[in-house]
Amino acid sequence: MPAQTVVNPVEFLRHKRDGREHTPGELKAFIDAFVKGEVADYQASAWLMAAFLNGLSDTETLALTQAMLHSGSVLTLPSVKRARVDKHSTGGVGDKISLCLAPLVAACGVAVPMISGRALGHTGGTLDKLEAIPGFRVDLDAKRFERIVRDVGTCLIGQTEKLAPADRRLYALRDVTATVECIPLIVASILSKKLAEGIDGLVLDVKCGGGAFMKDSKSARALAQALVTVGKGAGKRVTALITDMSAPIGRSIGNALETREAIEILRNGGPADTRALTLELGAEMLVLGRRCKTRKAAWPLLEAALADGSALTIFRRMVKAQGGDARVVDDPSRLPHSKVQHVVTASKAGYLTAIDAYALGVLAIELGAGRTRADQQIDPAAGFELAVSVGSRVARGAALLTIHAASRELVRSVEKRAHQAFQVGARAPKPRPLVLARMH
Amino acid sequence: MPAQTVVNPVEFLRHKRDGREHTPGELKAFIDAFVKGEVADYQASAWLMAAFLNGLSDTETLALTQAMLHSGSVLTLPSVKRARVDKHSTGGVGDKISLCLAPLVAACGVAVPMISGRALGHTGGTLDKLEAIPGFRVDLDAKRFERIVRDVGTCLIGQTEKLAPADRRLYALRDVTATVECIPLIVASILSKKLAEGIDGLVLDVKCGGGAFMKDSKSARALAQALVTVGKGAGKRVTALITDMSAPIGRSIGNALETREAIEILRNGGPADTRALTLELGAEMLVLGRRCKTRKAAWPLLEAALADGSALTIFRRMVKAQGGDARVVDDPSRLPHSKVQHVVTASKAGYLTAIDAYALGVLAIELGAGRTRADQQIDPAAGFELAVSVGSRVARGAALLTIHAASRELVRSVEKRAHQAFQVGARAPKPRPLVLARMH
Repeated sequence: MPAQTVVNPVEFLRHKRDGREHTPGELKAFIDAFVKGEVADYQASAWLMAAFLNGLSDTETLALTQAMLHSGSVLTLPSVKRARVDKHSTGGVGDKISLCLAPLVAACGVAVPMISGRALGHTGGTLDKLEAIPGFRVDLDAKRFERIVRDVGTCLIGQTEKLAPADRRLYALRDVTATVECIPLIVASILSKKLAEGIDGLVLDVKCGGGAFMKDSKSARALAQALVTVGKGAGKRVTALITDMSAPIGRSIGNALETREAIEILRNGGPADTRALTLELGAEMLVLGRRCKTRKAAWPLLEAALADGSALTIFRRMVKAQGGDARVVDDPSRLPHSKVQHVVTASKAGYLTAIDAYALGVLAIELGAGRTRADQQIDPAAGFELAVSVGSRVARGAALLTIHAASRELVRSVEKRAHQAFQVGARAPKPRPLVLARMH
Repeated sequence: MPAQTVVNPVEFLRHKRDGREHTPGELKAFIDAFVKGEVADYQASAWLMAAFLNGLSDTETLALTQAMLHSGSVLTLPSVKRARVDKHSTGGVGDKISLCLAPLVAACGVAVPMISGRALGHTGGTLDKLEAIPGFRVDLDAKRFERIVRDVGTCLIGQTEKLAPADRRLYALRDVTATVECIPLIVASILSKKLAEGIDGLVLDVKCGGGAFMKDSKSARALAQALVTVGKGAGKRVTALITDMSAPIGRSIGNALETREAIEILRNGGPADTRALTLELGAEMLVLGRRCKTRKAAWPLLEAALADGSALTIFRRMVKAQGGDARVVDDPSRLPHSKVQHVVTASKAGYLTAIDAYALGVLAIELGAGRTRADQQIDPAAGFELAVSVGSRVARGAALLTIHAASRELVRSVEKRAHQAFQVGARAPKPRPLVLARMH
């Protein structure tokens, strides 16, 4: 074993400040020293700003990812004999795909060990959606996580203290130092957590458009490419889809509402776009898990698992294994309901040309569906139910969406802006493809 | 009064990260919040890195300077009726000019309220030199400082807790985050402290060369220009001299040794270059203090004050007023002596073509004359006494310098490298001018 590199934090910062490239050994030494408290937060944050402005090469990003990955324990899931593949989405509005995708893929024979996140900014979080199911626990330890993945085929939990602690601490700093929107740092953050799950393959759903963090195609492509390059550099099978996030996904925004929609998908129903995106990502995962040779071959398997109820069965078993009330699976009316439901209607007739996903994401936070601070309580029942999709023909006075809120005051405070999120025009808009690009 | 700007630290960082210009109000709000603890160190350090990489305009630098200046109390010295002018040097090796310059200028009728610093890196500090005088106190409060400036004409103290606290805290962060070498931050740091002294004018001695922080003429000029522009923007009379720092100033490096050389200057003796630099800066100060119309007119006044002993009298009174043993002024042998004195000789004959000021500055730290950490004790007697100057003809075996050290071990550890700092060649070097440029 080579002698360990010792880091001088000031020299290390000067290096990146002057635009030079760190060696993998230097990056590892810096991250190790940071986790041990030998590098102060004010040094790490100055380095983050230097990395933001001067960039990190793919080699540096891979080394940073691996240093962050090995800052904590790395799961190997030895008892799980099947291929393990996960999905990560960069975050969208109405993105409940994980909830139906994980059991669907597991039903087709590929294990899905998934460590997910909470609502962040204007986007929702898988953990918050699952917690809308009474009793559902996302804070399971590694042992129980492995057992459920082995027995059920999938398990969805939150990040533990032990996995990639360097990422947790660096992310907290990035959040308060304007260093979030930086592709190499985003890549290292995503992959260090995902690689700690003990997976063989990963599909990345890189969202692009007004409701995504990456607003334009160029930055979405750059992120997708970096994720694929670094993920492969770490020895994993990785593909990325760039998918449209100009309008909300499906018909619901908000935790219980989205969980309900995911259950509809598993019951072989639900909105067409939610279903299509689930199948697109599922096909990638069956190929990555070597269950199918081609995506085309995967498609009928996935459709069958939705049609024959086997995906729903996996979901039911997962909910039960994670302490949740499995009765919601067959009776979604058991999910939390909001006290007030208010319908917003179209003020003129025409075609729905756009729905501002970002605006609705921000308004959903105001209703209590998301957070502006990590310690905020959320209201699982709050959110929006859309009556229409982009391209729908609407009559004057027709319902556009239902606001679900805890009070009339909340409804009043968002009502007008929610209405403004809908654009009605004289002509039908050109249909947008769901998958904008695929990278592998 | 306009409503106070409220700062959102993350927005503020994003602003500079994206290369935009801060308004004076935003900068003031950020510095105020930082001093109050509402902006964390990790946010300030990330901002420092963004400012380092994306720069600050002169307008921003002025606003930052004024925000830092007003982060603490600002002296006005109402009882001092004479013009007040100070000098600041960016730091050199063997730079004892403040010690003889301040009493000299005071003797000519311009008050010199001087707040100085400690040894930093390879350069010495005026306070450490003064403290070589037994009993000398540099930690006087603002009241006593003002009284001594009024009664004696000059007083040299250290930065107090109350003056420019934002600078002290920012500087501590810059030191550990590789954000020191940044002209706008240097300018704001220097001027925020100097403007807190209650001065009317300031002359800046910007050192340039191997022994200075600014190694090349371009960066020295940029710093000098920025200091003059921002200083004038703050309403002060300011000039800057760019002076040569390729070789040590005068014949001594080390605290007691330099104090002794300063006393020699005040006794109308001492090395020619130390005297010349003192007179050049003194002439600037008499003009800035409106004591003389031109530098040419100032020169005979200064020479007279050295010749008639009036400058030495002011120094004696200042030492006494600051608690020091005034007998050292007439008997410098009372200054601390080192136990071991060792002469290093030339190994070949020729002309002395160069003396590496930086190397000798670093070796002086090793002898104990400076510090590598703020909490280190220094040895006031340690240092080097040069027997020759650049351009001197030396015989083989002739003395080059005397090492003053606390032990033979210390002598041995620096001896060889001290010798290597002297370059002997066959031809006399071209004489270098002392003042490389003047900016006003």
